[in-house]
Amino acid sequence: MDYRKIIDEIYREVKPMFGNGKVANYIPALAKVDPKQYGIAVVTVDGQLIGAGDYQKKFSIQSISKVFTLAMVMRHMGSDLWRYVGREPSGSPFNSLVQLEHEHGIPRNPFINAGALVVTDKLMSLYDRPKESILRFVRDVADSEDIYFDNEVARSEQEHASRNLALGYFMKSFGNIENNVDSLIDVYCNQCSITMTCEELARSFMFLANHGINPYRHDRILSISRSKRLNALMLTCGFYDESGDFAFRVGMPGKSGVGGGVVAIIPGRLSIAVWSPELDKHGNSFMGIETLERFTTDIGISIF
Amino acid sequence: MDYRKIIDEIYREVKPMFGNGKVANYIPALAKVDPKQYGIAVVTVDGQLIGAGDYQKKFSIQSISKVFTLAMVMRHMGSDLWRYVGREPSGSPFNSLVQLEHEHGIPRNPFINAGALVVTDKLMSLYDRPKESILRFVRDVADSEDIYFDNEVARSEQEHASRNLALGYFMKSFGNIENNVDSLIDVYCNQCSITMTCEELARSFMFLANHGINPYRHDRILSISRSKRLNALMLTCGFYDESGDFAFRVGMPGKSGVGGGVVAIIPGRLSIAVWSPELDKHGNSFMGIETLERFTTDIGISIF
Amino acid sequence: MDYRKIIDEIYREVKPMFGNGKVANYIPALAKVDPKQYGIAVVTVDGQLIGAGDYQKKFSIQSISKVFTLAMVMRHMGSDLWRYVGREPSGSPFNSLVQLEHEHGIPRNPFINAGALVVTDKLMSLYDRPKESILRFVRDVADSEDIYFDNEVARSEQEHASRNLALGYFMKSFGNIENNVDSLIDVYCNQCSITMTCEELARSFMFLANHGINPYRHDRILSISRSKRLNALMLTCGFYDESGDFAFRVGMPGKSGVGGGVVAIIPGRLSIAVWSPELDKHGNSFMGIETLERFTTDIGISIF
Amino acid sequence: MDYRKIIDEIYREVKPMFGNGKVANYIPALAKVDPKQYGIAVVTVDGQLIGAGDYQKKFSIQSISKVFTLAMVMRHMGSDLWRYVGREPSGSPFNSLVQLEHEHGIPRNPFINAGALVVTDKLMSLYDRPKESILRFVRDVADSEDIYFDNEVARSEQEHASRNLALGYFMKSFGNIENNVDSLIDVYCNQCSITMTCEELARSFMFLANHGINPYRHDRILSISRSKRLNALMLTCGFYDESGDFAFRVGMPGKSGVGGGVVAIIPGRLSIAVWSPELDKHGNSFMGIETLERFTTDIGISIF
Repeated sequence: MDYRKIIDEIYREVKPMFGNGKVANYIPALAKVDPKQYGIAVVTVDGQLIGAGDYQKKFSIQSISKVFTLAMVMRHMGSDLWRYVGREPSGSPFNSLVQLEHEHGIPRNPFINAGALVVTDKLMSLYDRPKESILRFVRDVADSEDIYFDNEVARSEQEHASRNLALGYFMKSFGNIENNVDSLIDVYCNQCSITMTCEELARSFMFLANHGINPYRHDRILSISRSKRLNALMLTCGFYDESGDFAFRVGMPGKSGVGGGVVAIIPGRLSIAVWSPELDKHGNSFMGIETLERFTTDIGISIF
Repeated sequence: MDYRKIIDEIYREVKPMFGNGKVANYIPALAKVDPKQYGIAVVTVDGQLIGAGDYQKKFSIQSISKVFTLAMVMRHMGSDLWRYVGREPSGSPFNSLVQLEHEHGIPRNPFINAGALVVTDKLMSLYDRPKESILRFVRDVADSEDIYFDNEVARSEQEHASRNLALGYFMKSFGNIENNVDSLIDVYCNQCSITMTCEELARSFMFLANHGINPYRHDRILSISRSKRLNALMLTCGFYDESGDFAFRVGMPGKSGVGGGVVAIIPGRLSIAVWSPELDKHGNSFMGIETLERFTTDIGISIF
Repeated sequence: MDYRKIIDEIYREVKPMFGNGKVANYIPALAKVDPKQYGIAVVTVDGQLIGAGDYQKKFSIQSISKVFTLAMVMRHMGSDLWRYVGREPSGSPFNSLVQLEHEHGIPRNPFINAGALVVTDKLMSLYDRPKESILRFVRDVADSEDIYFDNEVARSEQEHASRNLALGYFMKSFGNIENNVDSLIDVYCNQCSITMTCEELARSFMFLANHGINPYRHDRILSISRSKRLNALMLTCGFYDESGDFAFRVGMPGKSGVGGGVVAIIPGRLSIAVWSPELDKHGNSFMGIETLERFTTDIGISIF
Repeated sequence: MDYRKIIDEIYREVKPMFGNGKVANYIPALAKVDPKQYGIAVVTVDGQLIGAGDYQKKFSIQSISKVFTLAMVMRHMGSDLWRYVGREPSGSPFNSLVQLEHEHGIPRNPFINAGALVVTDKLMSLYDRPKESILRFVRDVADSEDIYFDNEVARSEQEHASRNLALGYFMKSFGNIENNVDSLIDVYCNQCSITMTCEELARSFMFLANHGINPYRHDRILSISRSKRLNALMLTCGFYDESGDFAFRVGMPGKSGVGGGVVAIIPGRLSIAVWSPELDKHGNSFMGIETLERFTTDIGISIF
């Protein structure tokens, strides 16, 4: 398949679409990002890299970090994890407390904020130095040492963390958070602040396209079964309350972040990361989703 | 009316009812209270005091304090207050977050926890030394200097404040809390820890039975109109999600607390406080409600 | 008290307020009512009648009929009724199904549509000819034979009864409706279509101001206790999700209908009915509520 | 791949699991089915048929019929359909009205009851004789003329249709049902009553495993794109509020019915139908799901 030609064409067609969404403005550090940026990177299991546009510029991965922390916890915890967080789509916005109350503090899935906080809470109990461990993990799977927390973004998130503090304390009131809530929010704000390029991001998801094995270090991150399951979770829950629509239109497991990044995989084939900061009303990158929908149509391959 | 005879008879009939409820156990300091206690105090506008049983023992007034802080804020804020907190019954338990989310951080009324936190937040903005001011106010309306915070209860509440912290941060995320959430919870836990006797409590509500004037100091606490309105709020919202039932069965404006206290008034006539620590499933004193229902039936007077 | 002077003044001040609300448009037969109509009638326990404006024009009483059917059922059923319908304010719009689902088909109170349907269902089981019985009851308490169903309104309601059919079938699916749903909706649409004047309406509520006794026929409709309880229900639940606000501002037990009628009482003193078809956003007559708020302020009497 | 060996082994291991679920009892006609039945049928794109146990016994397909009616409507309606029904997982039980109310009568997806009613409503507008057309369609895709409505089941469903009538009238009150609600429920109860064998059911889903082409008649049922999209919908929404869990554990698009049938596909490879009447608490066949989980593990193929 000539991915280069397909990517170039999509890039040319989608690039004029600036102006259809809005940059995340819930924290100042994200709001000041230049909206007119757009990059694509495809990495294939046979080692190709196809990049276009701003694919080597760093951006804040935000919620995409939830996939890394979940993989880190799934490595070390068995099905016991699923007593603390569910595996069902939420049907609600990413930061809702309603469902949490009806379901006694057990979040619907690991990709809504409440569920990601539970995962990070478990990670803090499993790893001695959680922030360093997260950075180590991401660098390993992305095969790049040039990955850092963005301290300004992390600080800005902490200054606007009322909703996440509410989620943390609410779950703690149900006994579903083990660690100190302030420390939890600190780790969480840092994981969200990680900056990567499209190229790094596409590489970092290759272990999920590669049945659990990191192709750069040749070590197993997750068993085949857990790797498949994490992919299933991304398909059903990876795009907030637009997950069903994304599965319908794109048909690839993936994850988005409010920094404008989107990453998705086709198991056994490839990983693709797109970045463009303007978000649709569900908080997903407008041009990112547009790019993926065209990509899956043009290559004629989806998991369905 | 021979209140003495009526109260003595009710006391005799209700006293054998120990064992129909459960002492509040959400904080250790309350859980250890001896359940077999029961006191009644009636104070009339013409100065009578009728007491029975443990009516001079101190207990934790808990949510009843919400009436005092509301009166303190209503004195100084006009109808502007009602932009931050509603006046409708909630139809939900006292510490629910669901309605808050659907209504963008504006609590339904000042007597659910979220609404009381908004009121205390306003109080902190209006008074320089909020804790001292609350104590001063309560001593004045109760005509007693022997009223204090219970430091052990306050500390115990703060150690189990996750749910209230969640409520505070949640409303702050909607911009509906002005002050620091930790400080807010500190003031709130203290106001809830105030201990009073039935006699003091009945006296302290006399300004609401007396059209807004404190009969002990002869100063106006609230205008006639605001006094009536606070009474209306107690009738529709004072007993959590049992308010409608209480109005139906008892027909007096009042307020309950999880410490087992209940206080109610008949405008222009009297104030009655009852204390018994065993709570029904809605968190209201079982014997307290039983007492008030018999009282309103026996005296043949209700507001309806 | 010179009610005549007070009513005349209020009438003069409120009359220029046309245009602040909207006539009910959910059924064509109501939508075509001339909005610029406004009448007031006060009836006192000592037999005075004070009328102003259009107080002798007929209008559709709509939900006010729920009070009559409830009284008819409360006469014949003891506390057993409250197993099928609650006594708590709903905190939700009048035709919501959400709460019904969470509470297994038991409506919150008899004044939301679902609750009124349960009451009419019980009435159908208690009375052989339900429609005739309702008319008989209303004529008796209003002391007027000139009261009828408006067949055009009833037919129009039935043609637009999808929501009420949904409520009926939904409760039937929980086992909380005994009779055929189509017949139930027929009776219900008829009771809502009753037309009365302000004068008749004010008279018809006198039994509730008179401790349960119909002053025109001198027969007891309800026991004192049940009469008080029905009043308490009107205060906490009579104005949909504006009930708390109405209690706060007006402080009288009452009931409104989307035909623009509002009726309220002061126990032991009087009954007042107001009609003006323009509704506020909660479905209550804008000028009706305005009138009652001024009335309670001017006479200086409320139940609080 | 030796499907015969795999199926035989699974059949042997799962068969002893009778007693872990409960037969659907919401209608008498289903409640009387013998619970101890278990059949499996696999059909592959290269024409193999592997059957085990009761794979040639007829059972009531119930909600599986929703896939057929959706395919029939997707053939004739473009993306316009999605204005009337959503494509997101519901996160709620199959017959909930709560979400419908919050979302103004637009059901979350075509596989909850409300959504299926919208689809059948559109089908009634598109086809002159809807019941006959449904039977014709199912016989064509199953390549069998021996498929009928079960009149006893249909009648029993209609006698217990209060909840579905409530859903229908509720959506009609929002303007989202075009046809007469009674007729709609009649068609719906009939489509649910269709009886098929595992073998027929597995064949009837082959057009979805075969990119939209019916392999028996060689005619295109759906475009490739629509076929993929219907598969995506089954994966995210096909198993009620257990959809996420099913995707996580099994990883195949599929659909279940309360008659105990489950059918799933692997695009480009095969279709598998399982039947066993005992249901888990979410209303899915306990042994059916168990069988599919083992099958996907044993063949080492899933879409992830």
